This record gives sequence, C-alpha cells and structure tokens, in this order.
Amino acid sequence: MEQLPAPFIRVINALKRLPGVGEKTATRYAMQIFDEGRTYIDQMIQALSDLAEKVTLCPVCNNLAEGGLCTICSDPQRDRTVICVVKDIRDLAAMEKSGTYNGLYHVTGGLISPLRGTMPGDLSLDAIKNRCTADPNIKEVIVTLDATVEGDTTAMYIKETLKGLDVRVSRPAMGIPTGTDIGYLDGLTLSRALRDRKNI
Amino acid sequence: MEQLPAPFIRVINALKRLPGVGEKTATRYAMQIFDEGRTYIDQMIQALSDLAEKVTLCPVCNNLAEGGLCTICSDPQRDRTVICVVKDIRDLAAMEKSGTYNGLYHVTGGLISPLRGTMPGDLSLDAIKNRCTADPNIKEVIVTLDATVEGDTTAMYIKETLKGLDVRVSRPAMGIPTGTDIGYLDGLTLSRALRDRKNI
Repeated sequence: MEQLPAPFIRVINALKRLPGVGEKTATRYAMQIFDEGRTYIDQMIQALSDLAEKVTLCPVCNNLAEGGLCTICSDPQRDRTVICVVKDIRDLAAMEKSGTYNGLYHVTGGLISPLRGTMPGDLSLDAIKNRCTADPNIKEVIVTLDATVEGDTTAMYIKETLKGLDVRVSRPAMGIPTGTDIGYLDGLTLSRALRDRKNI
Repeated sequence: MEQLPAPFIRVINALKRLPGVGEKTATRYAMQIFDEGRTYIDQMIQALSDLAEKVTLCPVCNNLAEGGLCTICSDPQRDRTVICVVKDIRDLAAMEKSGTYNGLYHVTGGLISPLRGTMPGDLSLDAIKNRCTADPNIKEVIVTLDATVEGDTTAMYIKETLKGLDVRVSRPAMGIPTGTDIGYLDGLTLSRALRDRKNI
C-alpha cells in the first residue's frame, strides 16, 4: 500500500466501507476505476452527486424518491386499500419483482432488535398506525418481514399498534419454499408448514 | 428496478462495471452509499476526482504516480541495478508486501495472450530493453510474471528482447503454484520463490 499514491488510497478507503468489501476487493475496484479512465470516473462522480442531491425518502412510505412522493405512492394505478410493510428497499424491490402485489408500501428501515440496540423508536413503525387512521380507505396491512426472531417481534409490535383499528393485519404464509428438497429443510419451517397445511 | 429513482439507477449502472459486480451487488452498494449519507458521498466524489486528476502512470516503470516519477523510481534507497517485471500494480503491491525486494520495477500492463488478442505491441515490453540500454547500472531483470502459459510466453519474449545485453534475465523459482495469480500469493511463498530465482 505504501507505494500507492495518496488519492488512490483514499478511493480504496472509501470503497472499503461498502458491504463485504475488504482491502483486496477495494484495491481491485480502484484499479478498475483507474483503468476505465476519465469518462467513467466523471460519470460515476455525476451519478453520486445526483444521488446525494436528488434522491430523498418518500415522506409517506420511506421508499426512495426524487423529492416529493415516490413513484409507487404517486401512481394512481396502485391499490390504495392495502399497505405492505417491508424492512428495506431491497425487500420492496423483491416484492415488486414477484409481480403479484399492486398495493402501497411502508419501509420500516429495519427490525426491532434489542441485541443490536434497535428499538421501535429507531424505526418507522408508529407511522403505519398514523397512515391507517389518516386514510380510512386502508383495509389491510400485510407485514412482509423476515421469518426471524427480529421479524416476528417487529410483526407483533405492529399488530399491537394497530389494535382497535378496522384494519386486517396479515403476514405471508410460512411454509416450504418452491423448489426445495424437504430433506434439507430446517425443522421449524417444516413444522410451521405442517401446522398450516391445506386440503388438496 | 423500475420503481427506483433515475439517479439511483445511474449509480447502480456505474458500479456494475466493477469486476465481479452484478445487478444485486451493485444495488446493495448503492443502498449502502445512500445510507452512509452526504458526507461519505462527498468524500467518495473527492477521492474519485483526485484519482482522475492527480494519479498518473510513472513514465519510467508504469507504476501509479502523482505526476512525474513514482515513489519507487524516485527513492534513492532502492537498488538501481535490478528491475523486477510485473504484469500489473497488484502484483507490484504483492512484491512490496513480501518485503524481500528492494530494486526497481517495470509494469508490463498485462501478459502476451494471442487468444485474448493481447500482442507484445499492446504491452510495455520493449521499454524494458530501452531501460537496460539507457542505464548501464542495470545488471539483472527478474521476470516475476504468473506461472501460466501467458506468463511463460511473455517471459520468453522479454528474454529474447534482452539477448546480447550484459544483463542477467532471471525468473523466481518454481515454488509459485502453477495457475496462481501472483496478486493473491502469500508473502512467504513469494519471497522463497524470489530467493531461488534461476537464469532463463
């Protein structure tokens, strides 16, 4: 490292903050960036500067937006009677990719995790109740959070906050994922799938 | 993707040009960059802009430099009788890390590979001969290229160009496992291989 120019090392250090990127990967990326040349670096700088200046969080659902409402909240074609609660934008993107959901979203920004110090107040959870009370059209909240202890805890918290409102609170079915060999399934998944078995 | 803001997608597209980075990893990186916030993005922009403006290639050895000669070529403490030929800066960094070499370098920019269309003229190979003829102090050229077909071919080419000069042309001992990228080798293997270098 000591023989590398200081600006090069600063790029490596910036890249090292990306998830799963260590010294070696960051150096490889920095080499590639340098090799791609001026035009590419300028594109990257422009994109990053637009990201910082133009991309905001939707004030309603916390999805990414360009000022104002996000494309989903402002889309008149979406079903405005249902809100899908997800922990982050990646989960939202996975939902959109599945192509089966046409309602609104609410991004919590994470899951309740006392171990990691993430408490309900750190997340956008109470805002879900506010949205339901402010808009009588909302009939259902689908809590699409991870099937983990944190996800379960957060789902229970959301259910509690919505108590007394005329809103159905649901969660996607737990069960055997498509294409899975039952021999490799964990016991909890299998027992949940068995418990919720359906007639065929 | 279609629900993401345009500047966000432009960052993803720029990141996708990094080696081994696909759509999913680029999206994860872009999320992280956005989450880190304005200060981090500004640091990254500054580092990239410095990289484009200040980092150049050393006119003598092709190592990275900040204008003029690189830190190694301009270091009076280095042994100026020997040149180590490496294919890229990562290999140079691996050599430096091993701590056993104190001479000069020459970065070829790649290996001869007719299959990939990389011919001797595309690389900085003839410049090695020019350096040796211009500087009578140079007594040895250590060809530290990958132990692959391309590395062997390039080593042979370099040996040919140096024929007739009073310069020892050597290669680190076999000890480098065949098919291994030098950039990923541990320092001990590399320093042992250097100690046992042989004439070619």
